Amino acid sequence: MEVIKSTEGFEAINSNPSLMRKVVHLDHLMVTVMEFLNGPMETPDPPHKHVHEQITYVASGSLKLFVEDREYLLHEGDVFKIASNLNHCIQTLTEYVKLVDSFTPLREEFL
Amino acid sequence: MEVIKSTEGFEAINSNPSLMRKVVHLDHLMVTVMEFLNGPMETPDPPHKHVHEQITYVASGSLKLFVEDREYLLHEGDVFKIASNLNHCIQTLTEYVKLVDSFTPLREEFL
Repeated sequence: MEVIKSTEGFEAINSNPSLMRKVVHLDHLMVTVMEFLNGPMETPDPPHKHVHEQITYVASGSLKLFVEDREYLLHEGDVFKIASNLNHCIQTLTEYVKLVDSFTPLREEFL
Repeated sequence: MEVIKSTEGFEAINSNPSLMRKVVHLDHLMVTVMEFLNGPMETPDPPHKHVHEQITYVASGSLKLFVEDREYLLHEGDVFKIASNLNHCIQTLTEYVKLVDSFTPLREEFL
């Protein structure tokens, strides 16, 4: 499908209905739409890193972003980018947060 | 900069203040935030194609998408993907449309 409607394609991550992900991809480009439904988080999620480049658009809500030793406050409409292999994590600050994550290469573990 | 705030980084395309673009990129991944401010368009923009893979998130507004001989109606929250070298164009249906386009490889002409 070339078009995925707003309500289509979400799946709960780790059977957690408060953490929904939709995955859209081509051969080398992946976009995930993430919905965090039970914020704000009391603490950040565990730091993680990946070789994949990541650029994220904040579609709704507010969050803290941690990249290595740096901390940022983000709101709707902001964009952040995570270079390959940098440690990063987030902490949602609002009940609902929606992120549009772009990756290359594909996050094979999401397929 | 790892974070680009919502109001930062927009530039008018072809000196047209009704067509604003923000470009964010890493080595192989590019995201542009496009604002179309004077819609709806009376006719679609000219069809174009590029080798770059594209996935787009509709952040605001409504539009028609044309891909080769196919036509789609899109609203806020919808996602579409354009495989390499497919002809495509859009027609905005609302005064304001905001699109978040992801590309790989980089659109060098946007730099």
